[in-house]
Amino acid sequence: MTENCLFCGIVAGNIPSQQVAENERAIAFMDINPATRGHLLVIPRVHSTDLRESAPEDLTAATLLAQSLVSRVIERLDADGANLLSCIGADAWQSVFHTHLHVVPRYKDDPLQLPWHPAPGDLDAIAATAAELR
Amino acid sequence: MTENCLFCGIVAGNIPSQQVAENERAIAFMDINPATRGHLLVIPRVHSTDLRESAPEDLTAATLLAQSLVSRVIERLDADGANLLSCIGADAWQSVFHTHLHVVPRYKDDPLQLPWHPAPGDLDAIAATAAELR
Ligand SMILES: [Zn+2]
Ligand SMILES: [Zn+2]
Repeated sequence: MTENCLFCGIVAGNIPSQQVAENERAIAFMDINPATRGHLLVIPRVHSTDLRESAPEDLTAATLLAQSLVSRVIERLDADGANLLSCIGADAWQSVFHTHLHVVPRYKDDPLQLPWHPAPGDLDAIAATAAELR
Repeated sequence: MTENCLFCGIVAGNIPSQQVAENERAIAFMDINPATRGHLLVIPRVHSTDLRESAPEDLTAATLLAQSLVSRVIERLDADGANLLSCIGADAWQSVFHTHLHVVPRYKDDPLQLPWHPAPGDLDAIAATAAELR
């Protein structure tokens, strides 16, 4: 537990939340600023700033809990799909610095917009970037 | 392998891709419609329509490969952050129906927009939805 971390406070039970599911290493609770009905956050119990710092077993536990909740929101809430999203860094929209996965139920014709506009990239530039990443 | 699946074709090597990394159960390659420089897709080698149908060991392998690539894009491409995104269903922006995780490097002041506008939700409604999900 890290002092002054909102999500560590939720894990410890010092800060109230609407918890929905858990496993040994992760918990899931409602986002109180929901993008859509049923928006959940899944977090490892152990603190890490973002998923780069999360131990593999913690990230795995959070991912498998999120996987089960994707199915559950679609079945129970009659959602038409879902997104799994994690934000790493303030420039990637992270606002709470304890690793979390958003599970956002999606509904036909909801107002959410894909963050980018898919369009073909320059294949030579892509190949050059791939070389930087290998 | 599923016939007519673009990503199964990439796994099989029948369709060219700029592969960047792999592990036993997953591969990572460049998205040719990149949202930002270094946009990668991470997929399990075994076909599944979306992550609901992915075996835990395949989803775990893809997630851990994505985790390592989040660190790599930030280090190698001097990105300021990254997003991990998966789309489950056409209404959630899925366009290729083979489970995949987007790793999108983020750069300060890039034009991407969070898909929703965070705002406080109705706490009674959230509690009622939580009850539906427990
Ligand atoms: Zn914490
Ligand atoms: Zn496939």
